[in-house]
Amino acid sequence: MSNYEFGIVGLGVMGRNLLLNMADHHFSVVGLDLDAEKASTLEKEASSGHLIKGTTSPEEFVTLLKKPRAIMLLVPAGKPVDLVIESIMPLLEEGDIIVDGGNSFFTDTDRRVAELTEKNIHYFGMGISGGEKGARFGPSMMPGGHRESYERLRPIFEAVSAKVNGEPCVAYLGRGSAGNYVKMVHNGIEYAIMALISETYDLLHRGFGFKDDKLQEVFESWNNSDLQSFLMEITSEIFKKEDKTTGRRLINLISDVARAKGTGKWTAQNAMNIQVPVPSIDAAVTMRDISKYKMERMAASKALIWKDNTENVGETEIVSILKDAFYFAMLTVYAQGMSQLFVASKEYDYGLNLEEVVKIWRGGCIIRAACLDDFMHAYRRTPNSSNLLLDKQIASIMQKNQSAIRSTIKIAVDKGIPLAVFMSSLSYFDALRSETLPTNLIQAQRDYFGAHLYERIDMEGFFHTNWDE
Amino acid sequence: MSNYEFGIVGLGVMGRNLLLNMADHHFSVVGLDLDAEKASTLEKEASSGHLIKGTTSPEEFVTLLKKPRAIMLLVPAGKPVDLVIESIMPLLEEGDIIVDGGNSFFTDTDRRVAELTEKNIHYFGMGISGGEKGARFGPSMMPGGHRESYERLRPIFEAVSAKVNGEPCVAYLGRGSAGNYVKMVHNGIEYAIMALISETYDLLHRGFGFKDDKLQEVFESWNNSDLQSFLMEITSEIFKKEDKTTGRRLINLISDVARAKGTGKWTAQNAMNIQVPVPSIDAAVTMRDISKYKMERMAASKALIWKDNTENVGETEIVSILKDAFYFAMLTVYAQGMSQLFVASKEYDYGLNLEEVVKIWRGGCIIRAACLDDFMHAYRRTPNSSNLLLDKQIASIMQKNQSAIRSTIKIAVDKGIPLAVFMSSLSYFDALRSETLPTNLIQAQRDYFGAHLYERIDMEGFFHTNWDE
Repeated sequence: MSNYEFGIVGLGVMGRNLLLNMADHHFSVVGLDLDAEKASTLEKEASSGHLIKGTTSPEEFVTLLKKPRAIMLLVPAGKPVDLVIESIMPLLEEGDIIVDGGNSFFTDTDRRVAELTEKNIHYFGMGISGGEKGARFGPSMMPGGHRESYERLRPIFEAVSAKVNGEPCVAYLGRGSAGNYVKMVHNGIEYAIMALISETYDLLHRGFGFKDDKLQEVFESWNNSDLQSFLMEITSEIFKKEDKTTGRRLINLISDVARAKGTGKWTAQNAMNIQVPVPSIDAAVTMRDISKYKMERMAASKALIWKDNTENVGETEIVSILKDAFYFAMLTVYAQGMSQLFVASKEYDYGLNLEEVVKIWRGGCIIRAACLDDFMHAYRRTPNSSNLLLDKQIASIMQKNQSAIRSTIKIAVDKGIPLAVFMSSLSYFDALRSETLPTNLIQAQRDYFGAHLYERIDMEGFFHTNWDE
Repeated sequence: MSNYEFGIVGLGVMGRNLLLNMADHHFSVVGLDLDAEKASTLEKEASSGHLIKGTTSPEEFVTLLKKPRAIMLLVPAGKPVDLVIESIMPLLEEGDIIVDGGNSFFTDTDRRVAELTEKNIHYFGMGISGGEKGARFGPSMMPGGHRESYERLRPIFEAVSAKVNGEPCVAYLGRGSAGNYVKMVHNGIEYAIMALISETYDLLHRGFGFKDDKLQEVFESWNNSDLQSFLMEITSEIFKKEDKTTGRRLINLISDVARAKGTGKWTAQNAMNIQVPVPSIDAAVTMRDISKYKMERMAASKALIWKDNTENVGETEIVSILKDAFYFAMLTVYAQGMSQLFVASKEYDYGLNLEEVVKIWRGGCIIRAACLDDFMHAYRRTPNSSNLLLDKQIASIMQKNQSAIRSTIKIAVDKGIPLAVFMSSLSYFDALRSETLPTNLIQAQRDYFGAHLYERIDMEGFFHTNWDE
């Protein structure tokens, strides 16, 4: 008794798969769920010889664990997390560790850290990416919290995480809610890259008449290039998939009303709070929203007409231009997300090491991609760079591909196809490389109508002018 | 005694000017400020024969007011509003009315409405637009709150508000925080239109070498057309203004680091919460943010180079194209804001009448513009239309001008000038007129990696596929 190395509360598919993953790596583990069915079936799923136990009793669960106890919660974010903490707290002792493995909003984690630190319980917020399969066979894990206590967790997390070149896709990221924040931005990047892929699909399909097989080939060939990524890979597979009922390609039977769980929205909203521009993520969130307005879109498609006036662009040509444009836009998306982490780390005192962040994203997670290796090297060249696009090597890729994204956008504009995220990526790029922006006019306007004052380029201070005198 | 018709707490420039405005219209008014200087100078500013009184005593203030008392707060949003309410509450009686005239966040107003309704005090949140001058000579006023109590306020508000064709720019807008919400969206629209004007300036100045005099002429001529608006008018004046110290045009001495008070950000963030796409407002918020990154922009301007490859476009030609593009983009901005109000009205049970909203925005406020008259007629044709762009007359303007915005964006893309808000407006338009969007792919991806389920076009329900089997 009392020597199980790790416990998980919540035996849904994520908790269950993580426990089985840990058992595979010869850790003795115990799972708690109030659902007796879930608790009892857990043991049956384990391979023989593995020490894995399910229980419905919080007392038994806590008693079985080696001290200091390491307990992960995999329950829905929000109130359930607080309820579980409340229910197990009376059973815990000082020095025990709680790891929240869900997509908790980072300020909730900060509150819990503050409450539990008083009781000398060490609290971690940990983002986990990779879905069900990742949890079972190797996720990317983003823990943040109490630095010293991480040593108790490290061997287990490093064993079960995804590996890239033998290096684990998990690392201690920073203080407080650092882990949840990094995962939130991960998801924001995920939204934007998914949107870029869907816009690519739209331009090729609606704009150039590409059918499923040809689309599949494009995405597969891109996935065998510098553009390699998990999302590209699954997209290529999606276009192959047949619907069992109708025999048609399933993609064409899926509704275009996009759902969202809200983590991309949180990223965009919080970026606005800390004044970091992430326009590609904003646009991705917004474009999911516009997909919901099916009735308006149907009406508008009849009232607002545009006739494609593109000059002749060949199929080979568009695929080649679009590929470079995609690469360009994808890099701006990561750059925006990483700049958000750069600012957030200062704002919330996380102490993030950005090289570690891109390093653990290289495997296991949804946004894993070949370019993360380039980013890792960029951060090695300039630790904690404020913007990846300023790195020499990244900048040279941007230089090489900017002509392609400009051509792509012009073609889409002529065709009337909305490339919102591509466009946001280009305007981010063009604004970033503008030493002088026209926002001096906005300052003048604000001072004109609201006496909000302005700053000058030739002297210090804040000034007001009576503009209409 | 006890017969003053209206009282204002907070004698800053807004409170002071509103009181003087009310006195001009022969209402007897009293102002409360703990600053004795502010309280005592108020009376001196009034014209003779006007009944206006300043006091530092809450007791005297409340005693002087006719019952049911009508008290407006013009103090900074947030904690100060709660502190003032707390301090005067013991002096009030059931049926008295409090109007918060500041830019309070709408959920704060909802909380205060709930608290004060219990005590039978009728609470209003009222947006006021027009700046100092507006307050003094006629603002646009956006009150929301207790319907019946509005009758006590109506004569005063209608007298002091701006007028358009003799009609007051004030109306009861809806329940709860309706007034604050409408003002918030007003400000979001304001951000986006200011950004459109600054992008216009950028394209003409950086892209085509227009100097201040020529820019001034362009904005003035546009202001004498369908594009007439307050913001266009002041922009034209801004380009004339000389700096007293240097003799140069002041606009060129103003820093391009844009400030913001946050109401545009609130609009964008809340639109994401209620899932209304307002991409032009998002982009306006984001572009103010990017202006803050001066160091990064200076570095990037050297590392990321683009050579203008525009084919020859004449000065007359670009002004003409850009004018139509501006009109197009401006209409999408209003349409986005109004669609946010359409959804918010249902979401928060405001009971907004959208025709009233655009009607009271026609005068006094920062976003007053000739096109608001068109919107008013559009809502008369289709009360509570979910999207203004679906109105026949508006749609015909969009049709007429869409070619111009496409040309404008292509020119800016070739020149490397970031027209973020113009681009967002076009992609909003093109997405809205897409009967089918490529977001089916996003649903497939989400189901692939996260088992998030998808809907189908050929049957009801939610489905999951094992994509990689």
